[in-house]
Amino acid sequence: MHTHPLKLITIIAEPVLEARITTELLALGATGFTVVDGRGEGSRALHAAEIPGVNVRIESIVSATVAERIVEQLAIRYFTDYSVIAYVSDVAVVRGAKYETPLGKEPR
Amino acid sequence: MHTHPLKLITIIAEPVLEARITTELLALGATGFTVVDGRGEGSRALHAAEIPGVNVRIESIVSATVAERIVEQLAIRYFTDYSVIAYVSDVAVVRGAKYETPLGKEPR
Amino acid sequence: MHTHPLKLITIIAEPVLEARITTELLALGATGFTVVDGRGEGSRALHAAEIPGVNVRIESIVSATVAERIVEQLAIRYFTDYSVIAYVSDVAVVRGAKYETPLGKEPR
Repeated sequence: MHTHPLKLITIIAEPVLEARITTELLALGATGFTVVDGRGEGSRALHAAEIPGVNVRIESIVSATVAERIVEQLAIRYFTDYSVIAYVSDVAVVRGAKYETPLGKEPR
Repeated sequence: MHTHPLKLITIIAEPVLEARITTELLALGATGFTVVDGRGEGSRALHAAEIPGVNVRIESIVSATVAERIVEQLAIRYFTDYSVIAYVSDVAVVRGAKYETPLGKEPR
Repeated sequence: MHTHPLKLITIIAEPVLEARITTELLALGATGFTVVDGRGEGSRALHAAEIPGVNVRIESIVSATVAERIVEQLAIRYFTDYSVIAYVSDVAVVRGAKYETPLGKEPR
């Protein structure tokens, strides 16, 4: 199978954070993302701006290096004040090269 | 990367089962869940209450122990009468501790 | 856990391709699929028929053999002209037998 091992990072957050998180993903080296609307129930207290139960699921395929950078930044920026869930899984991506920001090129 | 190895359980079911399955997930030790609406086509006969092609995708991050318990109960309760799909995958979760029900504490 | 190791193939594509791709999945040996609507931003130029940012996420659980066949065909049929993303991950499926097309039986 002509695939490349990469990381799929999934971030579940309240909808008010969508634009901020996706902008940060691109700034941290992701070359794209997808977003799906969902609902749910979690174990943490709700933030004041949150509509109970409504969330967005943001996903991005990135290199292991970019995944680590995103996870670190999410923990610093959101985990104290917002009910953000983030997890990383291994995926085999068809035509994986396009998910790598070239060395020496500024991430978007 | 400051992540913890946990299990992501995904359950695809007809919408009429959403409230029942999510209540059971919490009773079996999950600390939360997310739900996304979808559509699809499967290989099994439709249940009488099912709108053809419409489904919900229920996801929950749990420990390996809770994942096993959920899978066993789903098989017993739904797989004979309903077109339920369930699968488990490995994920590396940021701040994984909050997905564990403390020992000696009643699961919600 | 009574599960079977199978492959989850995820295809993210512009909505106009949904019917064509899901028909091909079944023809290539998949026994079913689910579709969720999403939005996103990618690194490639848009196709003329594409509404910017709107996509569908098509998922199917298949054997490793069928996954390889689907990945090869997707690369041949779509990757030159369309902004299709495809990746494969490992899942442990409850009642995995129903995702296998029996040997000697024509795939749907």
